[in-house]
Amino acid sequence: MGLEHVLNATSVAVVGASKKETKRGYQAIKTLLNQGFEGRIYPVNPKEKSVLGFPCYGKVSEIEGHVEMVLITTPAATIPEILDDCGKKGVAGVVIVAGGFGEMGQAGKDLEKEIITIARKHKIRVIGPNTSGMMNLHTNMNLVGLKDVPKGHIALISQSGNMALSLITEAAIKSRQGFSYYVGIGNEADLKFHEYLGFFQEDPNTRAILMYVEGMRDGRRFLQQAYQTTRKKPIIMLKSGRSATGKLSAGSHTGALAGMSEVARTAFQRAGIIVIEDSDALFPAAETLAGLPHIKNQSVAILADGGGHATIAADKLTDLGVNIPPMGEKTREKLKTLLPVGASTRNPVDIAGGGDENPAVLADCAEIMLHDPKVGGLLVVGLFGGYNIRFAESLGFVEEDAAHRMGKLVKDMGKPIVVHSLYNYARPHSLDLLRYYNIPVYDSVEVGCKSISALSEYGNYLRSYQAKRKFIFSKGKKSKTRGREIFKKARMERRKALYEHEAKELIGLHGGQLSRSRLVHSREEAVAAASAMDDPVAMKIVSPDILHKTEAGGVQLNLCGDQEIGDTYEHIMESAVRYDQGARIHGILMEPMMKGGLELIMGTKMDDQFGPVIMFGIGGTLVEVLKDVVFRVLPISERTARRMIERIRSVELLNGFRGSPPVDRKAIKHLLLTISEIVGSYNDIQEIDLNPVIAYEEGLAVADARILLKKDEDLTDW
Amino acid sequence: MGLEHVLNATSVAVVGASKKETKRGYQAIKTLLNQGFEGRIYPVNPKEKSVLGFPCYGKVSEIEGHVEMVLITTPAATIPEILDDCGKKGVAGVVIVAGGFGEMGQAGKDLEKEIITIARKHKIRVIGPNTSGMMNLHTNMNLVGLKDVPKGHIALISQSGNMALSLITEAAIKSRQGFSYYVGIGNEADLKFHEYLGFFQEDPNTRAILMYVEGMRDGRRFLQQAYQTTRKKPIIMLKSGRSATGKLSAGSHTGALAGMSEVARTAFQRAGIIVIEDSDALFPAAETLAGLPHIKNQSVAILADGGGHATIAADKLTDLGVNIPPMGEKTREKLKTLLPVGASTRNPVDIAGGGDENPAVLADCAEIMLHDPKVGGLLVVGLFGGYNIRFAESLGFVEEDAAHRMGKLVKDMGKPIVVHSLYNYARPHSLDLLRYYNIPVYDSVEVGCKSISALSEYGNYLRSYQAKRKFIFSKGKKSKTRGREIFKKARMERRKALYEHEAKELIGLHGGQLSRSRLVHSREEAVAAASAMDDPVAMKIVSPDILHKTEAGGVQLNLCGDQEIGDTYEHIMESAVRYDQGARIHGILMEPMMKGGLELIMGTKMDDQFGPVIMFGIGGTLVEVLKDVVFRVLPISERTARRMIERIRSVELLNGFRGSPPVDRKAIKHLLLTISEIVGSYNDIQEIDLNPVIAYEEGLAVADARILLKKDEDLTDW
Repeated sequence: MGLEHVLNATSVAVVGASKKETKRGYQAIKTLLNQGFEGRIYPVNPKEKSVLGFPCYGKVSEIEGHVEMVLITTPAATIPEILDDCGKKGVAGVVIVAGGFGEMGQAGKDLEKEIITIARKHKIRVIGPNTSGMMNLHTNMNLVGLKDVPKGHIALISQSGNMALSLITEAAIKSRQGFSYYVGIGNEADLKFHEYLGFFQEDPNTRAILMYVEGMRDGRRFLQQAYQTTRKKPIIMLKSGRSATGKLSAGSHTGALAGMSEVARTAFQRAGIIVIEDSDALFPAAETLAGLPHIKNQSVAILADGGGHATIAADKLTDLGVNIPPMGEKTREKLKTLLPVGASTRNPVDIAGGGDENPAVLADCAEIMLHDPKVGGLLVVGLFGGYNIRFAESLGFVEEDAAHRMGKLVKDMGKPIVVHSLYNYARPHSLDLLRYYNIPVYDSVEVGCKSISALSEYGNYLRSYQAKRKFIFSKGKKSKTRGREIFKKARMERRKALYEHEAKELIGLHGGQLSRSRLVHSREEAVAAASAMDDPVAMKIVSPDILHKTEAGGVQLNLCGDQEIGDTYEHIMESAVRYDQGARIHGILMEPMMKGGLELIMGTKMDDQFGPVIMFGIGGTLVEVLKDVVFRVLPISERTARRMIERIRSVELLNGFRGSPPVDRKAIKHLLLTISEIVGSYNDIQEIDLNPVIAYEEGLAVADARILLKKDEDLTDW
Repeated sequence: MGLEHVLNATSVAVVGASKKETKRGYQAIKTLLNQGFEGRIYPVNPKEKSVLGFPCYGKVSEIEGHVEMVLITTPAATIPEILDDCGKKGVAGVVIVAGGFGEMGQAGKDLEKEIITIARKHKIRVIGPNTSGMMNLHTNMNLVGLKDVPKGHIALISQSGNMALSLITEAAIKSRQGFSYYVGIGNEADLKFHEYLGFFQEDPNTRAILMYVEGMRDGRRFLQQAYQTTRKKPIIMLKSGRSATGKLSAGSHTGALAGMSEVARTAFQRAGIIVIEDSDALFPAAETLAGLPHIKNQSVAILADGGGHATIAADKLTDLGVNIPPMGEKTREKLKTLLPVGASTRNPVDIAGGGDENPAVLADCAEIMLHDPKVGGLLVVGLFGGYNIRFAESLGFVEEDAAHRMGKLVKDMGKPIVVHSLYNYARPHSLDLLRYYNIPVYDSVEVGCKSISALSEYGNYLRSYQAKRKFIFSKGKKSKTRGREIFKKARMERRKALYEHEAKELIGLHGGQLSRSRLVHSREEAVAAASAMDDPVAMKIVSPDILHKTEAGGVQLNLCGDQEIGDTYEHIMESAVRYDQGARIHGILMEPMMKGGLELIMGTKMDDQFGPVIMFGIGGTLVEVLKDVVFRVLPISERTARRMIERIRSVELLNGFRGSPPVDRKAIKHLLLTISEIVGSYNDIQEIDLNPVIAYEEGLAVADARILLKKDEDLTDW
């Protein structure tokens, strides 16, 4: 069932309704009343006859009217019975406020499972448990008991009640923007992040989605949904719990695991989500994205009065990856006619006191600058809004006129303006006028920078969307009969991993380039195989019982000539038997030795929140030293594969150095995509480890390949 | 002359005094009057008889009374004459407001030189030019014309007028702390950063020094002063102009060069300066350091009400390098008796709603937590100050009591508390009480974190100060007679560099470990030299005329046996002559080949602001790829040498990898200190380049050494 009857419910019952002012069950009803909820309100409490003038019911099932939503304020232990009763009444959704579930040890986890079972049986959707509640600001269904929440166009999903309170407070005192919905995600026991996303994506009152996240229960489905949603509406997210202590802190109150921070961040960004690191910039970025057109060319002009703010803004925007292009010659000439001699017209444009007697010159400059085709958006830093305070009161009216002009300019040009003002604290009318036109105003230069950079980042994303594939595995579609057989055999033999030659065969089946390797079973076969290869060769034992091949004397390198190869065959066999007399031995794998080239590492791992992730980096002897690897959530597109390659710190190694030629990036990209396809084609893979992969000027060679199988109980789908 | 009569002047003349309200020459006198300047005021303007009731003088020299300080508000061209006149009167200092000097092309630079020459002649100290002015808030000598600047204990030095205005505004509206002095540094034409530092260090009204810097004229003297000052008082600095555009922006209005950002930051931090990256945290960090005891063990406890803020704070403090130790068992037991079941007592401590009916529980927790010896300071995040707003009005009084208790706790324990409150905007009385006790309160979790981390960073610095040497070269003290001869000879021969063998000899003279190398002049000498070395050897041409030795066939490696070595001697000589018939040839340098080992790079460069800087990193074939080098301003202490080694990204290469043994870190440290000593001992060195230096399990070998000489015109002292 969709969330329409839950989030847009037209009737609400409050279980635990109370006459005591300090009780949640009182505050909820009082707030529904005061804020003017448009639907029906039913207090439920067997001990009361009426609450705040409404007749009170013993149970939800006793209510005669239709009930879509139920707010449950009673303790954890009472929930199963109440849910069953709600089921009888056929309610669509409930909010469970109580803690004491998944976040509180095994007993809590069991109780959480129980209530979810009951809810599923009755097709009741559950918000929480362990949540501050939810609000629909457009119908005034306020189930949080918090007064004066500003109404607007941002849907807020938060995993922390006090962060929600912070954001709501910030909106109320510093902005003209507000919220369409608030959802306290709680333990995500039933309703999960991605389901709210799907709803808000279609909601006409929502223009941007703001999220505070500590950990997710199903990161993969969230990402799949986010890929859809961000095409239509921006998502702004702060993901905390990055540090070890932060994770503990998050764990201690949400019951969900905080995840690998680097993987998570890049995964979110690939899905078009604007990831915010500083909580100060969280609401501002959402406010800006909800109100202003995005930036189409990643370029911003800075307009300042005085150097300091301009310099700080230039530093910060550069950090954020935004271009600050020099103004065109014509633009500079026009600006010079307006500004004093000491002014800078390059970019940042510094009017250098040129507005002291006429702050409207800032609107003149803004108009000239936004008409420059190099400029995608404008950041104004400094004193605007306070020339009346700093110089002469009458300048306030001039600033108001300038504000109207800047507001209309944004509309006419389809380019955004964001303003920093050190007089923001005084709440001058001119700044309120800017906000009326959706131009946000901040007292922090850095927050202004982050906000306008969010418009640039979102613009970039939408522009590049064409290049993206869908974030969905074409499950099993590309699997091969022979590939399925390999896994089937390994499972039947109860192995934890494929043999190296099987792993390589699988990669070959999916189009991966491999060295020519052969499995041999006698001295004669070994000699014959070697003669068909370039000298020297490598020889490795193949046995399900010998995990540490080198220790067992099962790996020999750099072998030449029939005699040496034949002797080595026998030597390896003997060592293997000495190492483990009962070991099953399937033969010896022979391969030409890799010469020269650059050692790389590729592989996949399984992340708790996001499922399979792929890794790429510098391999061989340098892997432990450089720790130069990048991760991405699978599957990956061609573009992402290319970016992974470009993103390693030592990318210049790929260009060749000290005389060695550049390596074959196309082949690397191709192998990464092959790995992505393999993981998507079979459900058996826990982990892939190709190390080293040798990259040459033309082509690659996979020198060693390991594919670990999932445990039987983990054979779930991602 | 000291700055006493400048910054603490008891009499002020204002040149350019005016009756027009919009003129700086009016505002200055009006402000001196209104703010209650304690000294004498003399307007100077030949066109006026009187200004604001004071008699007006035609020139400064016509004033009959004593004049210590002169504020000059007239344009650039008028300054030389006015300065000369001030000289006649014997004034101590002037503020030159006008722009049009060093920041404005060659003509401006020339004019700046001229006025400094005049000032020096008369022993007048100059603030500016191109400055917003200066203020002494304790005598109310306000030469900026800015009203209502809060008085307090922070000395502010700013290279941007609008940043100063931002910081002053922030202090006025968000803090109870204020300023002892403000200095607009302007072009730093005469008075430089380090001179103000020296003055503020001794000033009894100053507890912390706050700086906004874009570029410095003499970074080295500033650092030398900062090493002294930070032992007594904290310095808090934002250095902007990091990015290319930021540098341009800074350059466009200060006339000073913005410097290498990484070198600058580490140099400042080594001198004990608290470097701030975000302007939002700049005043808060100064406010906190001016009012609270520093943290002695780099450890902070977090006290929160609700998870979100706690998690964000834990992430941020971790990023900032602050420890968040788990509370001791006894502490946790005590906390548990106070808090509800859902609370966390580890660290962060989350009272989880435990203050809803009694916010004083936060003071109880604070007391328990600060008594834990693991806790060096406390960060309170969340709702404190707003329980009366969120829950019931009467709780405000309880919060006030809690504020008094926390304030006294800081005094009693000598440990700091910093508070974040999302109700800060409402200015509740309880939060003002906290500020009365010097406990700062912020609306941003991140700013709170940065502020308390500044206390930790400063505490760390003071603790480690014992380990530091003075930041002064013992000029020439350790130079050797033979070393001076080497440089003298090279200069006489008009060479740009020392020969390799000279460079190596110099390093040897100062105790650096070297390979045994010999300069030979015949086939026979070459063979004899080789027989005294281990096979194989390297041979290199030594000629002042052959810069590119390899191109000239002048470098041959891996040579063994008398025949090969003899032939190679002749071959090299022939190649050299073919390459350049007129080349002077001093012989061939013979060395044993370096075998195995790890290639490092060491060297020095000359920075515009900070003079000689030393570099250390991974060398050889990896240097271009890894770009893994660290820089520090010279001279370095043993501790800094050790830290440089630890700071490279690939430090694990030094520990040995894949079977190779760890390298000799002591020898590396020793060679770094040798380089530091050499640069300090001779004034001739422009650049040193030792690449590669081969590090072994025991000892090093300098495989190639280049020492470039300064140009004659650059032979100034650092």
